[in-house]
Amino acid sequence: MLQDVLEYLDKQHHSAVDRMVDLLKIPSVSTDSAFAKDVRQAAKWVNQHLQESGLESQIHETDGHPIVLATNCDSPDAPKDAPHILYYGHYDVQPPDPLEKWDTPPFQPTIRNNAVYARGSSDDKGQVCCILEALMAWKKVAGKIPVRITVLIEGEEECGSGSLHSFVEKYKHKLKADVCVISDTTMWKPDTVAITYGLRGLLYFDLKLHGPSRDLHSGMYGGILANPCNELTRVLGKLFDDDHRVTIPGYYDNVQPVTAEEQQQWDALDFDEMKDCLTPVGVDTPFGEAGYTTLQRRWARPACDINGLYGGYGGEGAKTVIPSFAGAKVSFRLAAGQHPDHIAEIFEKWLRDQDTHGCKWEITNLGGAVPVAVSQNSPYMTAAAKAIGHSSGKEPVLVREGATIPVVGQFKEDLDLDSLLIGFGLTDDAIHSPNEKFNLDCFRLGYRTHAALIAEFAKLEWWT
Amino acid sequence: MLQDVLEYLDKQHHSAVDRMVDLLKIPSVSTDSAFAKDVRQAAKWVNQHLQESGLESQIHETDGHPIVLATNCDSPDAPKDAPHILYYGHYDVQPPDPLEKWDTPPFQPTIRNNAVYARGSSDDKGQVCCILEALMAWKKVAGKIPVRITVLIEGEEECGSGSLHSFVEKYKHKLKADVCVISDTTMWKPDTVAITYGLRGLLYFDLKLHGPSRDLHSGMYGGILANPCNELTRVLGKLFDDDHRVTIPGYYDNVQPVTAEEQQQWDALDFDEMKDCLTPVGVDTPFGEAGYTTLQRRWARPACDINGLYGGYGGEGAKTVIPSFAGAKVSFRLAAGQHPDHIAEIFEKWLRDQDTHGCKWEITNLGGAVPVAVSQNSPYMTAAAKAIGHSSGKEPVLVREGATIPVVGQFKEDLDLDSLLIGFGLTDDAIHSPNEKFNLDCFRLGYRTHAALIAEFAKLEWWT
Repeated sequence: MLQDVLEYLDKQHHSAVDRMVDLLKIPSVSTDSAFAKDVRQAAKWVNQHLQESGLESQIHETDGHPIVLATNCDSPDAPKDAPHILYYGHYDVQPPDPLEKWDTPPFQPTIRNNAVYARGSSDDKGQVCCILEALMAWKKVAGKIPVRITVLIEGEEECGSGSLHSFVEKYKHKLKADVCVISDTTMWKPDTVAITYGLRGLLYFDLKLHGPSRDLHSGMYGGILANPCNELTRVLGKLFDDDHRVTIPGYYDNVQPVTAEEQQQWDALDFDEMKDCLTPVGVDTPFGEAGYTTLQRRWARPACDINGLYGGYGGEGAKTVIPSFAGAKVSFRLAAGQHPDHIAEIFEKWLRDQDTHGCKWEITNLGGAVPVAVSQNSPYMTAAAKAIGHSSGKEPVLVREGATIPVVGQFKEDLDLDSLLIGFGLTDDAIHSPNEKFNLDCFRLGYRTHAALIAEFAKLEWWT
Repeated sequence: MLQDVLEYLDKQHHSAVDRMVDLLKIPSVSTDSAFAKDVRQAAKWVNQHLQESGLESQIHETDGHPIVLATNCDSPDAPKDAPHILYYGHYDVQPPDPLEKWDTPPFQPTIRNNAVYARGSSDDKGQVCCILEALMAWKKVAGKIPVRITVLIEGEEECGSGSLHSFVEKYKHKLKADVCVISDTTMWKPDTVAITYGLRGLLYFDLKLHGPSRDLHSGMYGGILANPCNELTRVLGKLFDDDHRVTIPGYYDNVQPVTAEEQQQWDALDFDEMKDCLTPVGVDTPFGEAGYTTLQRRWARPACDINGLYGGYGGEGAKTVIPSFAGAKVSFRLAAGQHPDHIAEIFEKWLRDQDTHGCKWEITNLGGAVPVAVSQNSPYMTAAAKAIGHSSGKEPVLVREGATIPVVGQFKEDLDLDSLLIGFGLTDDAIHSPNEKFNLDCFRLGYRTHAALIAEFAKLEWWT
């Protein structure tokens, strides 16, 4: 049966591209309320195509943009003994600015170099279309989808997924699947699909250090009272020791070590830290926590970054001021095992333990996301590896990512649900940047893989 | 003769106030070219009143705003055996912004609470008028000024005195006086005049630390390369040791110690570090270089201040960026004995000696000014103390200031000329701020003191 589905998909490749182009034409920029109508239009488009897959699909209103939720679980067709798969994706996109840097307009999808250029092509509309095409093909060829599935496509991923948590709470009973599948990541190389089984978490602070009640003349007051800029840099300067390890007591306590098996997998990967990572961003010196490789630092070790500094005079020339405050944005990428609540607690304690000589902290926790590390040994992981082998003709690699996909941790915390991250973007797709693109071979590989994945899942018998 | 001059001054106090008010009405904001005509108008006003003192006065064009230069040295009247005094002041003012915080308009001088409220009233037009009134009274009562004097009133003090250095070079022969007198400082207390014999110098840097060639995603790159914000705070955090001493090798090498005699004078001053200094600016903790008092720190010890921090994201909320650069404004207040050229050299070396893990410095020296410490034992100092005793009925105090008046160092370097800083402002005059004022008793004390000072100078016989 899968062979028929794949043949059908091959035959209708051009109309699949046309459908994706249709969706890409809709400027569903979620962060800008001027596009609210377009965002809703994209939700409608997704809803209609989910219905064409034979699913019961509906647009749900939220306090923000709508969420599209579709399922076959309530249908008499649904195979009762098959596993229940939750698909997640998003139909909203980043703003296209700066417009003048696009070679062709961001919402007039253009095909060249065997790729479609448009805002959202790789992140995430093109990848959502991979799932939709696979579902529609199964419906068309087999008459139904041979597993129980629920599909959640949201419209606020690019502006913080503000409505998702309460929606998940409300529809927990419908969303409590056996596994979640997400296509919003990249391939390892153009010929090698990656299954991402680990993500770092995040914790983000705004720190303000307040000193005098007003800006002061540095001649009259220099050297006789604590300058917030001096104090802030002095305190933040202590965040790292000479091995570039974070000095907050307990910071590394719960970090999960890399297993010998993982390390073997990573060693087998074709990865050159300079060529694949640092040289393209103009950096000639690998640097980080002593005793670890670049891949270990990115995937398995926590990081602490000052994302911004502000306070006092930053314009041209000189102004002899002692500012009344200074501030910094400080964030942590959390390694598997760390929890944002714990790190927030020990970081705040560490800050308050520093002597700031009379300056006072205003500490704002801007939120976090838990890190994720999924077992490599689940039946779903095995099914995914088989499906990818079938669709691409090559074994997938198992990787982690240094970045954070908050929804993955959220599904784990809210629904105790593991996610399979199988993405078809390429690292040069320029997501969030001008000239975003999605390669058409990746598109083909994407819908074929999802079709095969459904077949593999259907082979698993499962009782929830 | 002085007694006649003082009586005359007493009688015409009201018309003196009227003249000051006239000058204060002219919005001579030097930094804003929209006021260029007004600046010139103020120069004309000053020029005219210097001519009324019987001096040969002229407006000199510069690349910026005009300089008014007046003298009696070329006149047959000039007493050949008297010392030659250079008076310095400025007729330009700071911008009045924020306008909405003024109780009465900044260029509609208003008299209330025995003070005139207007931009420039204390800094420096009112104090320039003290000098002009004394000169005009001597001319009126005695027929001539009994010392050789040159008066230089510039119009660019509030925007950097850009034309002064080349003017001084050009007119060196006219400006090479025996001593310079400046009224642009404050009294010690409302009933006690201060002679300021020391000023700190200044050295100001813009520092940029460059890292990756573009802003990066902190998830993908966090922990694997040097973040310029992290590196900048780490390096600047090392500027001070635990005693809040600057760690740059050689930084304190040439700092002149406070003499036992000076320390006795300072101990005798009525000064409460909290009440007179820190509490009014909302600071409850004196802090600075260990082992020194607040007055010593302000007057005799160098300071290092970060005047601003910038780089990365400083807006609301979170942005997970590793910026391509981070920057800071860093300045030094130099103590007597230090030289900006030397400190610049050792600071730049110190910066370049720090390991920034591949990030690269862009160091911009924005200029400096030498510190000043004048001998307390010159005949001019003695003359000034006598004149102040006569005019105020109270001995003056000898003080230093923590701030910098670049022209004082410039006259010392260009003309080898020491300055007597005798000011009549009060510390609550709100210079550079809304509702600037000049107390009318201070105005009276000012012109009486300058009249008496001329008499004291005339008693000194001098051959240059």
